[in-house]
Amino acid sequence: MQLVSESRDGRAGIGRLLEPASVAIIGASDDPGRIGGRPLRYLLQEGFRGAVYPVNPNRQTVQGQKAYARVSDLPQAVDCALIAVPAKLVAGALEDCVAAGVKSAIVFSSGFAEVAGEGTALQAEIASIARRSGMRVLGPNCLGVLSFSSRFFATFSSSGDQQGYPQAGPVAIISQSGAYGTHLYMVARNWGLGVSHVITTGNECDVDVAECIGWAAACEDVKVIAAYAEGIKDGPALIRSLEKARANRKPVVFMKVGRSAEGAAAAASHTASLAGSDEIYDAVFRQYGVHRADTTEQMLDAVYACTAGIFPQSRRIGLVTISGGVGVQMADHAKKAGLDVAPMPAAAQKKLKAKLPFASALNPVDTTAQFLNDMSLVRENFTIMLKDGGYGTAVAFLTMAAASRFVIEPLLAELRLIREQFPDRLLILSLLGPPEVVARYRDAGYLTFEDPCRAIDAAAAVVRFGESFARVSSGRDDGALLDSTSVPRIPARSLSEWESRELLAGAGVPLVQAVLARSPEEAAKAAAAFGAPVAMKISAGEIAHKTEIGGVALNVSAADAGQTYDTLMGRAAKSVPSAKPDGVIVAPMVTGGVETILGAQVDPVFGPAVMFGMGGVFAEVFRDVAFRLAPVSKEEALAMIAETRGAALLAGARGRPVADVDALAGAIVALSRLAACCGDQLSSIDLNPFVVLPEGKGAVALDCLAVPKDVES
Amino acid sequence: MQLVSESRDGRAGIGRLLEPASVAIIGASDDPGRIGGRPLRYLLQEGFRGAVYPVNPNRQTVQGQKAYARVSDLPQAVDCALIAVPAKLVAGALEDCVAAGVKSAIVFSSGFAEVAGEGTALQAEIASIARRSGMRVLGPNCLGVLSFSSRFFATFSSSGDQQGYPQAGPVAIISQSGAYGTHLYMVARNWGLGVSHVITTGNECDVDVAECIGWAAACEDVKVIAAYAEGIKDGPALIRSLEKARANRKPVVFMKVGRSAEGAAAAASHTASLAGSDEIYDAVFRQYGVHRADTTEQMLDAVYACTAGIFPQSRRIGLVTISGGVGVQMADHAKKAGLDVAPMPAAAQKKLKAKLPFASALNPVDTTAQFLNDMSLVRENFTIMLKDGGYGTAVAFLTMAAASRFVIEPLLAELRLIREQFPDRLLILSLLGPPEVVARYRDAGYLTFEDPCRAIDAAAAVVRFGESFARVSSGRDDGALLDSTSVPRIPARSLSEWESRELLAGAGVPLVQAVLARSPEEAAKAAAAFGAPVAMKISAGEIAHKTEIGGVALNVSAADAGQTYDTLMGRAAKSVPSAKPDGVIVAPMVTGGVETILGAQVDPVFGPAVMFGMGGVFAEVFRDVAFRLAPVSKEEALAMIAETRGAALLAGARGRPVADVDALAGAIVALSRLAACCGDQLSSIDLNPFVVLPEGKGAVALDCLAVPKDVES
Repeated sequence: MQLVSESRDGRAGIGRLLEPASVAIIGASDDPGRIGGRPLRYLLQEGFRGAVYPVNPNRQTVQGQKAYARVSDLPQAVDCALIAVPAKLVAGALEDCVAAGVKSAIVFSSGFAEVAGEGTALQAEIASIARRSGMRVLGPNCLGVLSFSSRFFATFSSSGDQQGYPQAGPVAIISQSGAYGTHLYMVARNWGLGVSHVITTGNECDVDVAECIGWAAACEDVKVIAAYAEGIKDGPALIRSLEKARANRKPVVFMKVGRSAEGAAAAASHTASLAGSDEIYDAVFRQYGVHRADTTEQMLDAVYACTAGIFPQSRRIGLVTISGGVGVQMADHAKKAGLDVAPMPAAAQKKLKAKLPFASALNPVDTTAQFLNDMSLVRENFTIMLKDGGYGTAVAFLTMAAASRFVIEPLLAELRLIREQFPDRLLILSLLGPPEVVARYRDAGYLTFEDPCRAIDAAAAVVRFGESFARVSSGRDDGALLDSTSVPRIPARSLSEWESRELLAGAGVPLVQAVLARSPEEAAKAAAAFGAPVAMKISAGEIAHKTEIGGVALNVSAADAGQTYDTLMGRAAKSVPSAKPDGVIVAPMVTGGVETILGAQVDPVFGPAVMFGMGGVFAEVFRDVAFRLAPVSKEEALAMIAETRGAALLAGARGRPVADVDALAGAIVALSRLAACCGDQLSSIDLNPFVVLPEGKGAVALDCLAVPKDVES
Repeated sequence: MQLVSESRDGRAGIGRLLEPASVAIIGASDDPGRIGGRPLRYLLQEGFRGAVYPVNPNRQTVQGQKAYARVSDLPQAVDCALIAVPAKLVAGALEDCVAAGVKSAIVFSSGFAEVAGEGTALQAEIASIARRSGMRVLGPNCLGVLSFSSRFFATFSSSGDQQGYPQAGPVAIISQSGAYGTHLYMVARNWGLGVSHVITTGNECDVDVAECIGWAAACEDVKVIAAYAEGIKDGPALIRSLEKARANRKPVVFMKVGRSAEGAAAAASHTASLAGSDEIYDAVFRQYGVHRADTTEQMLDAVYACTAGIFPQSRRIGLVTISGGVGVQMADHAKKAGLDVAPMPAAAQKKLKAKLPFASALNPVDTTAQFLNDMSLVRENFTIMLKDGGYGTAVAFLTMAAASRFVIEPLLAELRLIREQFPDRLLILSLLGPPEVVARYRDAGYLTFEDPCRAIDAAAAVVRFGESFARVSSGRDDGALLDSTSVPRIPARSLSEWESRELLAGAGVPLVQAVLARSPEEAAKAAAAFGAPVAMKISAGEIAHKTEIGGVALNVSAADAGQTYDTLMGRAAKSVPSAKPDGVIVAPMVTGGVETILGAQVDPVFGPAVMFGMGGVFAEVFRDVAFRLAPVSKEEALAMIAETRGAALLAGARGRPVADVDALAGAIVALSRLAACCGDQLSSIDLNPFVVLPEGKGAVALDCLAVPKDVES
């Protein structure tokens, strides 16, 4: 367990950076609209209680405050220095801060790694100062920090210009992009959603989004974390922070941009080209219970719904509507969002029909507009639904009807009683009315959304957090690694198929039976022993793409096997004269089963990952694949399989036999353990095709290739 | 060309219903909050200029107006009567209206087909009155009509209670659901989006959504149509209205609910089970250029963007951002929305870099926050983008920066000049600011959105309308039908495969070569003639599922063909003793090619439709299918193929040969023509598998089944 005040490598934590007791502003400006003036103005106006020291060698006072010529002149070693000087002066300013015992610094200045050339060197210099000195540094090229409870508004963003900064709320916003982080804050503020912190990390020469998430996960003021990043440098650090957030039941809603661009950076091997690291982000977010948002609305809708602090674990959602048509729309949408629009139990339907004879009692419950004519019906309806129906979540579409002056008071009275009776249910109203009316329903303990579909999407996010908090485990199987004595040593050169087979077989990955023939006679003997037509393949580390050089022969009879051996060896010698084949692999032809593909790859950010997908051309065309960080538990392997649409085929769709999913899951686990323990020696592993035979008959790789680290495939 | 005032069957149009010059209120109430009181109140308060006659036999005056005991007492035959009496009195009231020469009626009353039992009979009665008399009837069970320019607010909705009704705008809302139609109106009003009409059609005993769309398509006040339906009864009428809307360049944005429920109502044959009529709605909307929305926001975002009246035909979108991170988010989203984030031409990039050295000039153009420090750069940037880059649409993310008091005036001045210079481009700003500031940018001719992703989705909808308006044709190929003398007569009983083959061959659908053997000797002879292993299948109308009874043998040698004939006939006789097989079909085995599936079905609402999808198990698991109403042109058949993800396989993905897409498209056209001309005799046709061979080698159905109308498959 980490302490809040300690960073992962033993250096100071970022508490004094984010909530300092004393602040210096290096490059303080008298102009309250400038980069060095605005933070001083905010600190003076917004009630910051610590000491504030403007540093400016050219002035006696700045914005009416005594100015200091140098940071060494300050009466104390401050917790945090804000740096607002040109890029090339930043390193000097930071050195002065270190000398003066300053604990942390926020660098607003731009002109670093985000611009070409000199900027990169300047950034390396300040990163090195931070590393050497232990002084924590946020930025450069960031919009700083807004810390609402300590009224520490260390930013030159214009977000405080229009109406100042409101009181603290439960949401921490952590963003690499200053522009997006403050945009998100402004949208949240306009929605009336309270924020505890806005932390913008910019170029991340030292403090990064991952560390800030960890800090927020431990901060009592924070209930929900909204994060934004273009890319994470330290995957394991992010994972530690996400684990901490989950342990503390803090939902993390994450916008990671660059979905489409990442695809282009695909690596050479087949598995790697299916991966693209964006899919690894998806896998990490899924494994660690993060809700990934693609738009600001998705982000803030989910964040807002989480502020209720109620996380049902059931996907069952009860829908109430005064309009039948909107009920259909809600049901469509709930299904799309992965929620279960389970019908009301028959007894509950009967009970409801007795109370509300005009209602459609199935689910959605269509009460028609009559609903609000007799308020006692409202309570009856919710009570039957929540008590007898057992739904974890209820969404009611009331639109403008709930804002009628005849309705507000009596409806609120009923709703308050329902809220009290079912404190653990997520209760949402879809309302249309003036803000002050909507606020009254919020005050009664209900989440409110104008749009019922957005309410449902947000509810789905909350339920997934509920599932994740209950699950605790990430599905990673850290206890089950091979012990270090049994970790295979992989040569740092291209492996032949036979060598790849040996590596995989040693790790317990099931492979089709095979013999490595080193002469025509051995090939003929092996073919005869298999007693049926065989597949024959050249095995040479120098020949990764065997088919292309004619190095594969299928359906070879025992009689032809010797001749085929010579043919394949001859083709290899002709096409790749430098190749030194191990020999020719002879294996029985496998018929039937479902073709899948398994793979492993080592992601540059997150390390070893494992992949499962439906086989052949369809894996590529439909991208019907699932990724996880390795190693995975068997349960998680089964979840990966279930996540693909092709899982229906394995389950026996279209008259097929049910496939041996257990054997498949076992193979995924074995492959994931191998990838996890050899991550530092590997680039990728590819089992394609991996055939899943009918139940009880197992599953086998028909072809395989392991590519060691730094080796071209 | 239809006249606005005329309905399709020669009866009066709905002009007098929607914009009457005189109105009676049958069941008028003195209580201005009641169903018979509210419409009278609205008509009196909101400036309706026509005559208004309350009808109430129990009062001298109603809400201060002289009341009439009966409709026959009125001084004139009114254009429209509003009916607010209990369900069982409605028929009588309508008969009175007919007798008094009333032209149209709006029935608010509920208790008709929406409730079980008696209600259905009551509705049949009023439908019959409408049909017999020619008096046009809206409803029952509707919330009536809001007609903003004529100030005709014939509704008992509470939508006018809070702030009355604003002036007319360009958007017509047409909704079966009264609750949803008025909810949509209220949301639009809150957005400041002007509405011309809200028409709610309820149970549609006479006037339906389709007819109202046609009316709105011809109405000069209407620029954009927002429609909502749970289901359409008269498909051809909807299509005529959509054609009219497209001819008049009126975008139709449609929410059709019930996506998920429809799936459950799948029919028996394979093709039909893939269809589900919701997919036919999708096909119709695609063919006739309708934008389908799933949520209120999608609907109103698209509607709002259409009000600009600018419909670029190019998918190229230029993105401008003051935040690099948001630029990535926008690019991701634009790609997802099907837009082309084409890079700036090299020359334009160079030009831009010269003017804005700090910008990233590719696309998105990341100007950084410096952008707004020198306003002339704004114009330079847009001019280079729109002139040299040639983008049809530009979206700029300016967030709160554009709301700064230092920025507003100079930015507006520049933006006005840009707007003037490029009147045909769709220009959108993503802004965050007080409504009055945002309004100023709107007044300068820009669309404004808070969220850049919603702006991009809306732009994508507008561009699709641009493409649709330019295309004009629906891809339906009405000129190419078989003439009536050559329309085949299909027997009204189950067809055998051979009979299905004959039907399809006659229509020019390519089939694998085959012989119908009627004896073991004929089978052996045919197999020998094909000179290779053959497939043999029992052909009997009584046996639809041949495989299940062992009625199919594959890879049969010429030597075994005679014996196999006897085996198959024997199995047929044993399994289905009543069957009278035509004989056994003998056909060569076809190897290679891409397996696809073609189908036709007759939709109960829209008539004959054609389907193409990727073959075998994947068609079902991935639902990678495309539908169109039949017949289709070859161009449209190619569009269907391109719409599937599997199209990549036909194009030669993963080292496959390029498939004969031309032959495939020809087969789709031929099948669609057959379906179109035999729609009244058919239920479905299923070609599965339909194998597309390599380019130049054609495409053939290996199996086929036609199911005549009203015959179980």
